[in-house]
Formats: sequence, structure tokens, C-alpha cells
Amino acid sequence: MANSFGKIFTITTFGESHGEAIGGVIDGCPAGVELDLEFIQKEMDRRKPGQSKIVTQRKEPDAVRFLSGIFEGKTTGTSIGFIIENVHQRSNDYSHIKDSYRPSHADYTYDKKYGNRDYRGGGRTSARETANWVVGGAVAKQVIPDIKINAYTSSVGDLFLEKPYQDLDFSETENNIVRCPDAEVAKEMIEKIDTIRKQGDTIGGTVTCVIQNVPVGLGEPIFDKLHAQLGKAMLSINAVKGFEYGSGFCGAKMKGSEHNDIFNEDGSTKSNLSGGIQGGISNGMDIYFRVAFKPVATIMQAQQTIDKEGNIVEMHGKGRHDPCVVPRAVPIVEAMAAMVLTDFMLLNK
Amino acid sequence: MANSFGKIFTITTFGESHGEAIGGVIDGCPAGVELDLEFIQKEMDRRKPGQSKIVTQRKEPDAVRFLSGIFEGKTTGTSIGFIIENVHQRSNDYSHIKDSYRPSHADYTYDKKYGNRDYRGGGRTSARETANWVVGGAVAKQVIPDIKINAYTSSVGDLFLEKPYQDLDFSETENNIVRCPDAEVAKEMIEKIDTIRKQGDTIGGTVTCVIQNVPVGLGEPIFDKLHAQLGKAMLSINAVKGFEYGSGFCGAKMKGSEHNDIFNEDGSTKSNLSGGIQGGISNGMDIYFRVAFKPVATIMQAQQTIDKEGNIVEMHGKGRHDPCVVPRAVPIVEAMAAMVLTDFMLLNK
Amino acid sequence: MANSFGKIFTITTFGESHGEAIGGVIDGCPAGVELDLEFIQKEMDRRKPGQSKIVTQRKEPDAVRFLSGIFEGKTTGTSIGFIIENVHQRSNDYSHIKDSYRPSHADYTYDKKYGNRDYRGGGRTSARETANWVVGGAVAKQVIPDIKINAYTSSVGDLFLEKPYQDLDFSETENNIVRCPDAEVAKEMIEKIDTIRKQGDTIGGTVTCVIQNVPVGLGEPIFDKLHAQLGKAMLSINAVKGFEYGSGFCGAKMKGSEHNDIFNEDGSTKSNLSGGIQGGISNGMDIYFRVAFKPVATIMQAQQTIDKEGNIVEMHGKGRHDPCVVPRAVPIVEAMAAMVLTDFMLLNK
Amino acid sequence: MANSFGKIFTITTFGESHGEAIGGVIDGCPAGVELDLEFIQKEMDRRKPGQSKIVTQRKEPDAVRFLSGIFEGKTTGTSIGFIIENVHQRSNDYSHIKDSYRPSHADYTYDKKYGNRDYRGGGRTSARETANWVVGGAVAKQVIPDIKINAYTSSVGDLFLEKPYQDLDFSETENNIVRCPDAEVAKEMIEKIDTIRKQGDTIGGTVTCVIQNVPVGLGEPIFDKLHAQLGKAMLSINAVKGFEYGSGFCGAKMKGSEHNDIFNEDGSTKSNLSGGIQGGISNGMDIYFRVAFKPVATIMQAQQTIDKEGNIVEMHGKGRHDPCVVPRAVPIVEAMAAMVLTDFMLLNK
Repeated sequence: MANSFGKIFTITTFGESHGEAIGGVIDGCPAGVELDLEFIQKEMDRRKPGQSKIVTQRKEPDAVRFLSGIFEGKTTGTSIGFIIENVHQRSNDYSHIKDSYRPSHADYTYDKKYGNRDYRGGGRTSARETANWVVGGAVAKQVIPDIKINAYTSSVGDLFLEKPYQDLDFSETENNIVRCPDAEVAKEMIEKIDTIRKQGDTIGGTVTCVIQNVPVGLGEPIFDKLHAQLGKAMLSINAVKGFEYGSGFCGAKMKGSEHNDIFNEDGSTKSNLSGGIQGGISNGMDIYFRVAFKPVATIMQAQQTIDKEGNIVEMHGKGRHDPCVVPRAVPIVEAMAAMVLTDFMLLNK
Repeated sequence: MANSFGKIFTITTFGESHGEAIGGVIDGCPAGVELDLEFIQKEMDRRKPGQSKIVTQRKEPDAVRFLSGIFEGKTTGTSIGFIIENVHQRSNDYSHIKDSYRPSHADYTYDKKYGNRDYRGGGRTSARETANWVVGGAVAKQVIPDIKINAYTSSVGDLFLEKPYQDLDFSETENNIVRCPDAEVAKEMIEKIDTIRKQGDTIGGTVTCVIQNVPVGLGEPIFDKLHAQLGKAMLSINAVKGFEYGSGFCGAKMKGSEHNDIFNEDGSTKSNLSGGIQGGISNGMDIYFRVAFKPVATIMQAQQTIDKEGNIVEMHGKGRHDPCVVPRAVPIVEAMAAMVLTDFMLLNK
Repeated sequence: MANSFGKIFTITTFGESHGEAIGGVIDGCPAGVELDLEFIQKEMDRRKPGQSKIVTQRKEPDAVRFLSGIFEGKTTGTSIGFIIENVHQRSNDYSHIKDSYRPSHADYTYDKKYGNRDYRGGGRTSARETANWVVGGAVAKQVIPDIKINAYTSSVGDLFLEKPYQDLDFSETENNIVRCPDAEVAKEMIEKIDTIRKQGDTIGGTVTCVIQNVPVGLGEPIFDKLHAQLGKAMLSINAVKGFEYGSGFCGAKMKGSEHNDIFNEDGSTKSNLSGGIQGGISNGMDIYFRVAFKPVATIMQAQQTIDKEGNIVEMHGKGRHDPCVVPRAVPIVEAMAAMVLTDFMLLNK
Repeated sequence: MANSFGKIFTITTFGESHGEAIGGVIDGCPAGVELDLEFIQKEMDRRKPGQSKIVTQRKEPDAVRFLSGIFEGKTTGTSIGFIIENVHQRSNDYSHIKDSYRPSHADYTYDKKYGNRDYRGGGRTSARETANWVVGGAVAKQVIPDIKINAYTSSVGDLFLEKPYQDLDFSETENNIVRCPDAEVAKEMIEKIDTIRKQGDTIGGTVTCVIQNVPVGLGEPIFDKLHAQLGKAMLSINAVKGFEYGSGFCGAKMKGSEHNDIFNEDGSTKSNLSGGIQGGISNGMDIYFRVAFKPVATIMQAQQTIDKEGNIVEMHGKGRHDPCVVPRAVPIVEAMAAMVLTDFMLLNK
């Protein structure tokens, strides 16, 4: 079930970038949750295209239509079906990729795997799919309201937000279009993306996510470790190339005497290089991780590529694309994290 | 099923560090595979404790006893049960952790989650479990003999093997005890680990893995992406803090015009920052990834910690432990990769 | 994932009887299948309400709207989303069950399990859900066009079609409204149902299903036996109380010397009491099974029941209901069988 | 994972009839359950061969060796590995089936599916596998001690125990070797089996199972209905041809006005034709079902069959076999029911 995620709280999705609609089924949501539909739409708005000058200019309202599983404002415990109509397709923008493969896109691999591909807007490979995940995440967040999940842009290219998360005010994140909770760094990041955009180029970046107020005991040892499932969730997001939690790759340079988190009497730890997880199980400390996104593959520059027959052809980016995925990835990272946490909360109850 | 991994080719495991035996069930192995049992034992020997001065001195033969699923030297298509007896336990080495929690170990989280814990040698949290995985990986490698999987130690602490994998001779990896395929760097790494060990300390490191000769089309889009499943597999290994593939975290600093892999006429690409995977599906280029391991938490130094009642106590490392997990992690990384690849090969056939 | 069925070819569904729409996601359908949408609609018409005088008079066009996974008439290998709008709800027919429990319906168990229930038309418990399954089955049939699946009404109450399936002409099944491929018996069955209907009562019955042209080797031994999965599929259908295949319950009265199927030289068998499956694996002979349906619980007669407070109240059936589910169950049985067979065909390829 | 059963409480098994050992892994057993190992062995003794004159004379102690997951008498929440050594194989009894197919056995289907088969004692197709299930069931029964599961032999051939289960004393079941809780009928059944055995023939039968003290709300609607999962479990048992619950196939002959279960004020029902389940969810009434077993295929008479080349050959039953599986199937039915109930109890908590 390549289009399903989760064990107890699951989402199963469908939809192509330029098809009629995308959507999905949320299964395993407990009964009796009062769903705030406005909140869900606000989450959608954080991800939707056209929200600012540094993202793709495709205009989609991304209005979610819930078809089942909710009665008189509350979840019923049955599966929640939803669809999001696609309204602003411009499929003829994509005729140039019908017979050619965009470099570093999945055109080639889909064609070789399936032999039959909806090439319009990237079809199923488009990150448009992640709108479905934001629906799932926005429901999940309401199932586990006590757990606080905050993601933010922590780097754009080689421009890093150096402050540790403890020094940040997450309520600042939504105050700028790049979603960096430090106004000054945000400004620089926005300028950087705008410059790159004007060059017809794109740029990578990272998103950091902090999960707070997690009870001790979430996660299943051995093969369903909490961080392994978080990692899988993040690596499912389009353009992700890496995942690290706690000390991450830096931890690999350290000594045990530096890295160990010493306990306080109440079971909390003085440091938290572990990132809130020991042996795959939450220890009650903050969980934090970082996700690396490559630069968007579609650039507004001429590139050499091949067509289906293997002839070298020149291709020039068309369509409406993000110069940097990171600002819109922030709510997607949160959504996937929310679904993972909800799944483990329900498994653990 | 926290103790199972895989969808078609699956492994389900059991066993505590100081119990009678560990073992597992391999399900979904195709019929008719001629199993080379000597090869399996050789793989076990690469992982086993006591193999050199820079690893734990526990002596376990790690002899695998296959109980089913093999008839007249060939797999029958039915489930393969196996056990590995534990012979060299020294459980009294662990009486000091019966009532106290070792810092940065899973003692605390297991106790809080389960309320009942086999503390001897870390019980189920011990990396002894990974011996089971090496059995699974050694079988998997024989199911997909054409796919070449080579892992090696790429860093110990801040000492990095700088050469790209293309310049390495993987046949050198097993020629030194740290499993670095560059004799000179290997020597430095061994010295580093030995120095750390004498200090009663431990050190982290990274393992790089290269998978070659992969057919185009492996991996399922959306939630079972090839790299997402590889990432989950790697994050399941004890002490892992991060995973990146292809350009990884470096890719997040790059521009699209630098990062895109331009096609050759035959569908291969000139560069391979993608790491052999596009849209979650293999593109036929080499797959490569890097895994970060934290330093081993058990150090031979006094550390402050707490007991079950929350009293501050002093603890001193006992038992036999690795000063650096990386040399023994190399075959484990390969084993997990082999199982993931086999799973997708069977799903894709 | 209570709302998903299948391992490789899967369906995940949603929808309440009187909600906006029902629908689902078909995952794992191979790429390149030319889908005959008219055929799908014809299958829907076989199940839809209002098709004859002996079924419920609710009028639903049951028009399927496919939203993804199909491009230029062919499946793409990605997930197929679909919805069926509900158009002929009469929810006020159900205000009488808002606070009371209909006998032998799932009102009571849903309320106790979930505490929150969409009572209109039975909500999620309604067999309206099975319209989704017929979509899945109609797609599945086109994935495995060589396998012939024919179900038919084999009894209504105590009126049995005595002829063995070998003596029937399945092309006759759709020639009468009760779906019995023997015109004479069909006539009697229709009369029986009509009489029962006029009494405000309902009646049970059985459906027999014959699957022909199945390759040898389908089914996974031990826990995914072909007949076990078929049984689970059938027992998932509303109102089903029993499943038997091959000799079934009659076989339990027989001796081994009578029951054994003796081989012909080509591996076929002279008799087929086994029902085409040995050890959970198809043997190439016809698979046949029988499914028992209880009488519909809603009767147009006064019945005593209780309300939510446990007070005894009198209830009288309202709404539009089937006097006998069997005629409409025929395509549902086929649909579930088609999905099971497709799943095993894909697993076995 | 053809060799796994269950979602939360799962069992994964391995082993051939004449291999070294059989065994499995129980995953998802909650921590802190005090396991009565003597009880487990008693359950094994109910199933084991050689226990009476009316069962196979193979002598196996069926001693269970637990290897993990239990510490100081209690479950730890980690996976429970176990093995059962095979000690009384007589593999040369089976040389005659190496190249020929026993009628109505799975020899032919396994050979066609896998091309490689451990033919000794039927290999993996042997009901010896069910010893593993009894281990799982015996653990499961201790996880849900309040739920009472009682199975018994309800027919042998055409000899039926006519009394409804309400009139039976389940404590009588183990007082006779056929496991029928009515001494008189039991005597007749034993005589019948013994007569059949002397004829070198075998006979089918049915097992009825009653599950009492089940809380309201177990079972997941749509595709994981409680009775659908029970049905799948029962249909997984060797030689089973049918499953019915509540009114079963008789219910298909009834009218709604006869079949509906009218509520009492407390939510219980006056009758219980529903069999304790409505809409796939337990309603608190007794669950009862009936399972049909075909006669054992191995008879001590000459039968015609074919060899691998398709030549007609004569075969005569050898080895040690049951004249009727039903007496030994009683604990197996209970074991599978116990695992299903435990799974839903854990899912529902």
C-alpha cells in the first residue's frame, strides 16, 4: 500500500497535480473529536501555492471537502474521506515534458517503472500530493492537542539560523513568508530566495521541527522506533535528502563523555543530545530533528536532457514553480510529524 | 508488529542480550535459492563481538542454527526459522543497573513504558539483536546476488575518509579491523579508537553504503519510497542519529543549476547527486547513503545518574563494550540494506 | 486499517448512507490496464437500489466519478480515487432511530463502541458501503480478465436451486431480477420474496460463487490461505452468517474414502470436493463457495426495542429496504472475490 | 507475511513436520502478564499426538522452550520467541510421497507453487504447525483471563450433539477423548471413529466454539469485523471447509420477524441468533460459531494417484495419522479464537 501511511491512524491518498481532484481517506481517527474545520483550512493556507512572491504562482484555494466520518461537528470513529478539487491547472504548460525527461525529476523513473504516466504537472510525483498530508496532519493535531509541534525554516542555501531552538519564539514563524522565527534572518533568507528566483534558479534548505510535551513511552522498539518512523515520514516528503534527530551528524563526531545526557532527579536530563528519544522510545524531553531539502529541480534556465528515444534535447523550465520549497515545506513537516505522533499515541493508549 | 520488518521479504525477531538465545523468522524468501551457509556464518563473523581489540571482548560464536525453510540445501518458500544461542553472558556484570538508569541508554524509557525489564546486558535494547538482522541480510544477499552492497567506515569522530566512494576499492574494506577501505586512513582510525578506549571513553562515527547494479524501477512512490524505507531501516539500528542519501545535507546548500543530474543518451546521468533514486524509485545509477552513529553510551568512567526512586547515584561502566560501534555496524548496515532491496525486488518482479 | 482490504491490490473506503458521498482509493492496480468505464457502471447497476420491485426503492444512479490514477483511458499504476455522490437520501426517515436501537442492527454496538453515530440510514453500517466494493471489484475483474467469476442466488429461504453449478448456464443469471440462472426456480424465488415483502417481512438466502480458469499456485500457505482470505472477504459483507467452500459443511459428514479427489494424469482431479484449493493454494480446478445471508433486520412490522436510556419502546420499520438482500448481494460477492483473486495474482506474479 | 497472524497481538511461525524444530514469535503481548507455563504445557497436551487411541500414534512431548520476552515469570512487552523440538520423526515413512502426490493433500499445489518441497511428513503443510498456534493461544488466554473460550466436538460424521450449548457443561469436555461435553454422545462418537479407523478410513466432523464474557465493542467495522477475523482464523486451520456463526446457514432460511433478536432493557437480547456480534462488533452476548472439518485425506487404503511425471500410480497410506481431526482440533480452535479476541481487546483498549 504505497499510498498509505500509519498503522492505527492512517492516511491513504490519491491524486495527480492536474487531475480533477486530489484527496484521501483518514482511517483510525478516534470518535468524538470536535474538528475545527477553520483550523484545517488555515493549515492548508500555510502550504498552498500562490501565498507569496517566493513560492509558485499557481493559485489553488485548496478548499477541503469532507465527505464522511464527521457528524454534527464531531468525528464518528469511521473513516474520513476528503477531496480537494484542482482548479488552476494549466496542463499545456507541460506538453514539453510529454516525451522528454526533466533532469532530477521522477519523469524517467516513473516512465520506466509504469510505462504510462500522467505527465501534466508531474502527475502523481508532484508535491501537490502533500496538500492531502496537511489535511491528515491538521486532523491529527486535533487528536493530540497537548503535543506541540513547531517546524520552521532553519537554513536556505548556506544561510543558517544559528540560534538553538530554545532561544526562538515559535509564534514568530508565521510572521514572515519564509517561516523563519527570527525576523532578521528571515529577511536575509527572503532576499536570498528572491535573488535566486530572479536568476531563474532554485535553492535548497533545511527545516527544523520541535515536538514538545510528549509523554514518556511513545515508540515501539526494534523496527517501529519513534525516530525511525519520523525519519521515514520526512523522507517521504518530496525533495528530502536527509534526516537527523538530536545531535544528528554532529553527534557522530563526539565522545561518549560529551554526548551522554545526565539525568535530573525527576527523570529529565540536563542536556538533550538524545533528542527526546532513547532506544526508539520518547523520554519526555523535547524531540527535535532536521530535514534537508534539495533545490527544486525545475529551473527557468535551459538544460540539456533526453527524450523517450534517447535523443539529446534542450529543455527550458515552464509552468509555475517554487524557487525554494522550504517555506511551504514547514507545514508539511509538521503534518507528517503530527500523524506519526498521533499514531503512536493511539497505539500506546 | 514492532519486531517485524519488510513487506514481502520480512524478518521477525526476538531475543535478549543475556537470554538463552536470540533468533527470528524470515518470511517471504523465494523458493529454490541455494543457500551458502558458510557465507552466512562469515557475515556473522564480521559483526560478532570479540573479533578485534577495538570492539567489545564478549566472546560469542554467533553460530546460526536454521530450523526450517531449507531442504536439501535450497529454500522451500516457507518461513525460515533460526536461533543463535547466547553462550558468553556475564549477567552479574549488570546487577548495578537493575535499579539505576544508565545515561543515554534505553533503561529509563523501557522501564517507564513496560514497567518490567530484563536489565541483563540491556535485554532487548542491546545491539545483540542486530545479529539476527545479519542473518536476514545474509539470506537476502543471496536472493539478489546481482546487486552489490558495500558499506564501510567513512568517519570516526572528526577523522573523515575524504575520498569519494568511486575512488575506493571495496575489496580493501575487510583488510583492516575498522573496515575503512583506505589502509592509511584506517590506521589512523584504529589508533583514534584505541586511544579513546584507553581513556575509558567512546567515539561516534559514520558508515557509508554504496549499492550498485540496481535495476531501474525499485521503490514505491508516495509512502514506500526506496530511500524512505532505507532511511527507516538505518534509523532502526542502535545508536543511529541521522541518515542522508545522495547529496544529503550538503544538497540543501546547493542551487538547482548545480544539483541537477544531466542525462546521458542511455538514461544514465553525468553526475549523481540524486543518489540513484528519483521520486522514490531507483534510476539505475549507484545508490549511496551515509549513516551517523553516536558514541556508545556506556563509558568506563564515573557518571552521575539516578535510581528508580529518583535518587542521584554514581555509576561506573561495567560489562564489555565497544569503544566505537562503527566497525561492527558496517555489516549491519549492509544487512538492512540487503533486506530492503530484496523486499522491493520481490515486490517489483 | 479497518476500512482497507487487500495486501497488494487494496481498497480503502469511506462514506455514510446519507452523507454527501461515498468513495474510496484503489491502490496497487497495475499500470497499463485499459479500463472499460461502461463495464464498471454496468456492475454498479447490478447492485444499485431501485432496480426492481424486489429490492429497496431508494433511487441512486450510483455514478462513479474517478478522480485519479487513470490517464488517457489506462491505469497509471498510481492510486485510483473515486467517489459516488449520494443523491436520494431521505434522512428524516431515520429520525425514529436517533435515540432507539433497531433490533439486530448495529445501532447499539456502534453507539457503545464510538459514543457518536451518524444514524441517518444506518450511517457507516449501511450496505451502501458495498457500492464502493463493486467499484473495486469491477476494476479488479479487468486486471485479471482470464479468470471467470460467476455468482448467483442459490437459495431464498428454504427454496433451493438444487442443480449443481456444472449444470447451469451463467449467462442466464442476469436474465431475471433475483439472479438465479434457472428461469423456473428464479420465478419461484421472486414470488417468494414478493410474498414476504407484502407481509412486511424479510427473508434470508444464499449466494454461490464459482471461479474458473484460476492458475495453479494462488494463495499463501498458513495464514493467507486462498480460501481463508475469500472467507474473510465474504464475512465482511453485511448480513453474512456463514461461508463454506468445496464440500463445506457436507464434507464434515463424509469419509476420507468418499471425499478424496483422485488425480487425472494431467494433475486435474476426477471429483472436486476440495473446491479447487489444497493447503490454501489453488490447484487449477474450479473454486466454488457458498455464502449465507440472514434476513434483513428492518421489517415493516412493529417490534419492541429499547431507547438509549434503556426504556422499552415500540418501533416500526421505515425507510426503503430490501425484503431480501440476496439478489443485490450477487455482484457484491463477485466484487470481493475479484479483489481477492487479483491480490493473489499480483502477489504470485 | 503468510506466516503471521494478528495486528497488535501477532504470531509468526515456522517449522516443518519432520524438521529439527518448529516455533514462532509472539509479538505485541503486553508487559507484566504472569505466565503460567504449566497451563501452556497442558494446552499443548490437549493437542499433542499420541494422547489416545483415536488420534495419530506419533509421540511428541511438544515441550515448549521459551527463549525471550519473559523475565522473572512475567512478560516484558518484548517479543516472545519459542521453539518446540521435533523428536519422534519417522521420515522414511514418507519416501513414497517424494515423487507422488497424495490425493486431497497439498503435495501437488506446493510442488507447483514452489518447485521445492520438504515432503517428509507433509513438511510445512502438516498440521504439526498448529502446535505453534496452541502456544500463541495459551499465552493469549492469559492476557484476557476474563473471557471464557470453550470449544468442543459437536459432530463426527453424521452423528451430531443435538443439545444447544446452553445445556452443556463445558467442564465435561476434557473428560473424554473425543472432547464432546456429553458423555453419552461422546461414547458414540468414539466408537464411530474407532470403527472408521479399523476400516483404514477417516471421517469429518465439526467443532463448536462458545466465547463468553466478551465486552461490548470488540471488532472493527467494514473489513476487520470480529466475525470476519474469527472466520479467517478458523479457515486457516488445516482441513477446515466452512465457518458459520450465530444462526449461520440456518439463518439463511429464516424470516426477519423470526431472526431478529429483541432487546431487553439492559441492552442484552432475548434471543441470540446474531451470535453476539452486530455489524462486526461484539454486543456483549455470547459469541458462538461452528467450524467444519473434512475427513483426513490420508487413508490406510489403496488409492490411485499420479507421480511427478503424470504417471498413474497406486499409493497406500503410511505414517501415523488421525482417523478424525476433530478431537485434536478443539484446542486449536480455542487457540485461534483466543488470539483473535486478544488482538481486538488490545486494539480496543
